[in-house]
Amino acid sequence: MSKFIFGVDLGGTTVKMGLFDAEGTVLDKWEIVTVTENNGSKILPDIADSILAKMAERNMDKADVIGVGIGVPGPVDAQGVIHKAANLGWGVFNVSETLSELVGLPVKSGNDANVAALGEMWKGGGQGYSNMVAVTLGTGVGGGIIIEGKVLAGATGSGGEIGHICVNENEEAVCGCGKKGCLEQYVSATGIARLANIRLAKDDMPSTLRDCAISAKSVFDAVKEGDALAIEVAEEFGECLGKACAMIACVVNPDVFVIGGGVSKAGPVLLDYIVKNYTPNVFHGSRDTKFALATLGNDAGIYGAAKLVLE
Amino acid sequence: MSKFIFGVDLGGTTVKMGLFDAEGTVLDKWEIVTVTENNGSKILPDIADSILAKMAERNMDKADVIGVGIGVPGPVDAQGVIHKAANLGWGVFNVSETLSELVGLPVKSGNDANVAALGEMWKGGGQGYSNMVAVTLGTGVGGGIIIEGKVLAGATGSGGEIGHICVNENEEAVCGCGKKGCLEQYVSATGIARLANIRLAKDDMPSTLRDCAISAKSVFDAVKEGDALAIEVAEEFGECLGKACAMIACVVNPDVFVIGGGVSKAGPVLLDYIVKNYTPNVFHGSRDTKFALATLGNDAGIYGAAKLVLE
Repeated sequence: MSKFIFGVDLGGTTVKMGLFDAEGTVLDKWEIVTVTENNGSKILPDIADSILAKMAERNMDKADVIGVGIGVPGPVDAQGVIHKAANLGWGVFNVSETLSELVGLPVKSGNDANVAALGEMWKGGGQGYSNMVAVTLGTGVGGGIIIEGKVLAGATGSGGEIGHICVNENEEAVCGCGKKGCLEQYVSATGIARLANIRLAKDDMPSTLRDCAISAKSVFDAVKEGDALAIEVAEEFGECLGKACAMIACVVNPDVFVIGGGVSKAGPVLLDYIVKNYTPNVFHGSRDTKFALATLGNDAGIYGAAKLVLE
Repeated sequence: MSKFIFGVDLGGTTVKMGLFDAEGTVLDKWEIVTVTENNGSKILPDIADSILAKMAERNMDKADVIGVGIGVPGPVDAQGVIHKAANLGWGVFNVSETLSELVGLPVKSGNDANVAALGEMWKGGGQGYSNMVAVTLGTGVGGGIIIEGKVLAGATGSGGEIGHICVNENEEAVCGCGKKGCLEQYVSATGIARLANIRLAKDDMPSTLRDCAISAKSVFDAVKEGDALAIEVAEEFGECLGKACAMIACVVNPDVFVIGGGVSKAGPVLLDYIVKNYTPNVFHGSRDTKFALATLGNDAGIYGAAKLVLE
């Protein structure tokens, strides 16, 4: 009986890989380098070779493997077609079919942020729920939406691109996407540092932030020490993200928002600032939505990729 | 072989009912009165009686019927549990199970706006697509979201409550839901009339709207005649709805937005004002999303209810 699953999290520099049993216990984890030369043409062959090598090492038969799941850094639709992944040099093709032919196993694929969300629902901060929005606060802001246990991919694989919801009509600075006032400009790691620098330049208010390198981490460390200026920055962060979550809840009405990414290392204090601004701004039908921190860290992607296979 | 479906659209004053074949052709349509006395306790028995009477009239067996679908004016979760329907006097109970016991047939239920959206996808403005957001511009603003052909109900049946997305942080007037700046305050029939009255009071700019009763219809009639003041109101309408659709697209990335409700009788001009504000404000992955008018009118509910049974 088939009992193993491979979960693959394809990033721009490394490919994280995991071997799981069908209950979601990770049995082995390893990484290989992402070779992006020649439009990333070696990436999928390398992944297939690594899976086949692991199977040989463990004396596993193809019949022992339920399938391979893979999260990819670009928009992937419900059929497994990637609509361009600039980081990898990839154009438009069917990832699931291509990898399946190479490895000789069933393959399911999805966008990496959506797949990580699925991982958090399965074994992380969203465990026990089936309608979930994952908000990943890293260099940018990613999102992943799970509806009744399934990834919402969207028409062109752009479901859950919540970092580009407009939260400030009056913004002058331009987001990486070319628009102005995107959520990402305020609540990503970069965005929080930007808010702090703007606040510091505004006047001479004393703050421990004046004596250290500005980052999302230093801002929330200062918040925990009661630094008044840092608290103002956290309030602005919370207002932007809390209101954006209220809008998102009007659309998909999730059971839970799971907050992850590097910024989430600040811990529960982060949730306080979000919830405080979410509750008064949300439609009453979504007032009891839960907020939780992600718990799987960098492993969310391999867990979610494995779960894709079981969907 | 079973080949018939009953589609039921339960409203606060009448219950619309339809008999369909499995291909979605409507064979019969009729209405009964919604009796809301005694906390609406007669509503489901009346519907069951009407279905059984129709079956007797047509000499139909239970084996001929695939099932009954019903759209209900309140939040219904994926299990068929309604979480209160104030208009009907209903509390919390499982609509699908209750009606199924009464009528002796399989029953599926959903929120009326979501079910109408499903109808438009199946046989109306969203035909041929599987990821759709329906925007219903009536007295209020309703929404229905379909993902890969299925209604997005949400955790508590409040999925698609897009009328309560905040689009204006500075609004002073209070929405029916208790919040301020909700989409519904600008783009519903009532909202458009409100915008027109505010604009008329602002100065003495001449307008044909000064000589008629103000309504969404009179505003868009004046737009078609080139009335400059009415065009300003339409621009404001389009800005609010176009930007809201851009936010919604960042979340669910639909193939198509289908615009329905009484206001949509204004025709294609409505779409022009929406698209003009959608395109520059949306994340690039959703730039090619289509906009279409609803085509089923008041029958969308019975079509969608019938489709629920085939899901």
